[in-house]
Amino acid sequence: MSPAYARLEARFREAALLGEASAILGWDHATMMPAGAAEGRAEQLVYLGRLRQEKLSADEVGEDLAAAEAAAGGLDDWQRANLAEMARGYRLQRAVPADLNEAITRATSASEMCWRQARAANDFAAQRPHLETVIALVRELSVIRGEVLGLDPYDAQLDCHERGLRLETVTAIFDELEGFLPDLVDRALDRQAAGAPALRLEGRFPRAAQKALGEKLMAVLGFDFTHGRLDESHHPFTGGVRDDSRITTRYDEADPWPSVMAVLHETGHALYGQGLPPAWRYQPVGGSLGMVIHESQSLIVEMQACRSAEFLRFVAPEVRAAFGVDGPAWTAENLGRHAHAVARSPIRVEADEVTYPLHVILRQRLEVALLAGDLAVGDLPGAWNDLHAALIGIRPPNDADGCLQDVHWMGGGFGYFPTYTLGAIAAAQLFEAAMALRDVRAPLGQGDFRPLLGWLRENVHGLGRGAGDAETVLIRASGRSYDVDCFRRHLEARYG
Amino acid sequence: MSPAYARLEARFREAALLGEASAILGWDHATMMPAGAAEGRAEQLVYLGRLRQEKLSADEVGEDLAAAEAAAGGLDDWQRANLAEMARGYRLQRAVPADLNEAITRATSASEMCWRQARAANDFAAQRPHLETVIALVRELSVIRGEVLGLDPYDAQLDCHERGLRLETVTAIFDELEGFLPDLVDRALDRQAAGAPALRLEGRFPRAAQKALGEKLMAVLGFDFTHGRLDESHHPFTGGVRDDSRITTRYDEADPWPSVMAVLHETGHALYGQGLPPAWRYQPVGGSLGMVIHESQSLIVEMQACRSAEFLRFVAPEVRAAFGVDGPAWTAENLGRHAHAVARSPIRVEADEVTYPLHVILRQRLEVALLAGDLAVGDLPGAWNDLHAALIGIRPPNDADGCLQDVHWMGGGFGYFPTYTLGAIAAAQLFEAAMALRDVRAPLGQGDFRPLLGWLRENVHGLGRGAGDAETVLIRASGRSYDVDCFRRHLEARYG
Repeated sequence: MSPAYARLEARFREAALLGEASAILGWDHATMMPAGAAEGRAEQLVYLGRLRQEKLSADEVGEDLAAAEAAAGGLDDWQRANLAEMARGYRLQRAVPADLNEAITRATSASEMCWRQARAANDFAAQRPHLETVIALVRELSVIRGEVLGLDPYDAQLDCHERGLRLETVTAIFDELEGFLPDLVDRALDRQAAGAPALRLEGRFPRAAQKALGEKLMAVLGFDFTHGRLDESHHPFTGGVRDDSRITTRYDEADPWPSVMAVLHETGHALYGQGLPPAWRYQPVGGSLGMVIHESQSLIVEMQACRSAEFLRFVAPEVRAAFGVDGPAWTAENLGRHAHAVARSPIRVEADEVTYPLHVILRQRLEVALLAGDLAVGDLPGAWNDLHAALIGIRPPNDADGCLQDVHWMGGGFGYFPTYTLGAIAAAQLFEAAMALRDVRAPLGQGDFRPLLGWLRENVHGLGRGAGDAETVLIRASGRSYDVDCFRRHLEARYG
Repeated sequence: MSPAYARLEARFREAALLGEASAILGWDHATMMPAGAAEGRAEQLVYLGRLRQEKLSADEVGEDLAAAEAAAGGLDDWQRANLAEMARGYRLQRAVPADLNEAITRATSASEMCWRQARAANDFAAQRPHLETVIALVRELSVIRGEVLGLDPYDAQLDCHERGLRLETVTAIFDELEGFLPDLVDRALDRQAAGAPALRLEGRFPRAAQKALGEKLMAVLGFDFTHGRLDESHHPFTGGVRDDSRITTRYDEADPWPSVMAVLHETGHALYGQGLPPAWRYQPVGGSLGMVIHESQSLIVEMQACRSAEFLRFVAPEVRAAFGVDGPAWTAENLGRHAHAVARSPIRVEADEVTYPLHVILRQRLEVALLAGDLAVGDLPGAWNDLHAALIGIRPPNDADGCLQDVHWMGGGFGYFPTYTLGAIAAAQLFEAAMALRDVRAPLGQGDFRPLLGWLRENVHGLGRGAGDAETVLIRASGRSYDVDCFRRHLEARYG
């Protein structure tokens, strides 16, 4: 190992420690922090972020990268992959002018703050100028990133969320989905209408009992509580650091089901984090892959494993015991009716597995047009509602439940939405690939996730970012890149 | 303001932000962090601490200090006091070799880890070599600090815990205390034996009810929950940052009283933090004074205000309502018997207000001898037990309840113990001074702390470190430096 490479590892370790401190402070911000501390916390986080940025974009990094690349022959595979990650990050960071970075931080922060009010007040006009500013800045950023990466601007945005992902791939996959999903939705709704209706889960379900059930299920899934916790926040998320994975949920005391599902989803993310290669904790190559694989890990748990008939049989008595309930609403069969309910709804985060990709296709088409300037922000509400009617079959009742519902664009997140659906496809493929090798599904009936988790540790988690990108992971595990047919088989089997 | 002074403020602000990040991570460590994250958290904290240290001891600081001092005529009083604080900190930090700092960090960490086991196992022999190493290193440190400050080594240690405090002052005050406390303890015990015995507080007191009561009392005291929280930890403490004050307690479901008292004590510390001058948040002069004033703020709340007959009358119905209890054990009178109970006990943290100073005198005498090398560590258990018998009238049953009971020395805390008792004296003086000006006590009977808190904001909290030292604050507020007679009057009135 060259002295230059060793210096780089030391520097990236320091940057990682700053990132870890920020991660815990960010978790605290969302879960524990009293409201009056927001300004002070922002100062702390901005400063830690600036220190990290300076460390990673200093001139010495460029010099050491050149020297380390010249002597790369002495490195092993992990080190070489690490060096490539370092170089990519450095090139991207150096290319973006500091004042553009600052302008984006300011604009997205103002836009997100406005959005909270605007959505609540169904006031698109208030949000419009913020979104216009954000789009103009993200466009500028995506052009710069594109120049560094040799890509078109939207491809550069995709590449920053999932390495190697291109619009061409997304379009082909989404066209294929659009070819069969509307018909499948029709059939799923018909089948649902013909069957017995889901009995309501009535009662009052105390927070503490919901939390205890959540923690019990996390343990069943293999979550290590010596390296993590479950807390409450406004929106469920997975935060924390490698050896301290912190997931959150929210509780509705009139309906325990959404919280159970959120906990299972976030636990999937957290298991990925807990399974990353510990030796590379502080280096870029030891991090998680892009958002496709991350989402596949939450969805393989939530959608593939935990909505299976096997797991529903296991979980039904757990749910009954947790809340001291019984009767026909609490059988595995009726819980399954809730888990597999399909509906044409305007809200993405409440959507089922079958309609969800249509919500994503809608957003992906519109964001391409917004970023290219082919769709003016002022025309967004109408375009949203028309495309929503065409894809999902209903018109949103208002902008709050239409184009104002998601925070992503308001915060500059363009090129992110496609990874949700690619993650769902990847989850179906990985689950099928795991089942082909060993029986990972039958043990779920006894609450035994070890076969599945063991397979994921070997084939996804333990690879860190060494695998390079999502397609490599998929091909390595399943022999194929994104395989829409596999996803379709899964949906047909469950809903068709 | 000179450019050099402006640069110093900018630099100290950055150091303060690193300190704030560490404070929240430290709180999290004690309250939220899963055990398996300890090593990783230590890495984060060590790195943030190193960055802060580098920032404050860089050559540029010395150059800017010289330039700013030469141009100090253009500064106002706060800025001049700030500059003096900066200079003092810089001189102290630069004088201590990095390897001594590291050796102390390593030795105290190993010593504290050993202590947890050694105390539990009553194994002084295991602790002895660690304590010997720590004392040798602290001796070295205190000599260096003494050279910088122009003081004897023990005085330098005192000065680092409470600016301006000298052994001569401590000795005079402690001799005076020793002159009347043993007799007062005798009389208090006689009086207690002659009166009605305290009825036991029997029942089961759920955590949640204890926490709700704690939060209610914090609000009564004036704690601002938009800038702070109450949580649980192994030992009660006050942490967090200026606008986010985080206090902790622990709960015993068989006995609610210790937790109530811990909450009141920590709230006193927290109110001080919440009342520091916000404009100087990120500068040394905006911090709290030394440990004497800090302890006086917890004790003026816990001992002076909250053990008063007035407050006990207010709190008794609150306690009854919180736990749904009633009867003769739950009257203000009987709660007062618990609040004012005196006992000869071997354990400092459980000691009452009258015997507590004797525990401190014991430690202060022994630490002077240990640091000077006049008492060998091997002779500590015997010396402790002999002096304990002489001062407090009983011999500890073993070392665990004797010289192994406190973590302070194990962690290098020499010169700290005296501030507990000086803080108790200061609290008595400040309370008397406040009462001389306005009626702060009668309103406590209605749970009205505003008169007392208002006086403290003006006379202590809002001064930050601008007041210079504890004696200045005392003289400004009460016309006198440490006044043992005032403390004696307080104790005689309550226990004599």
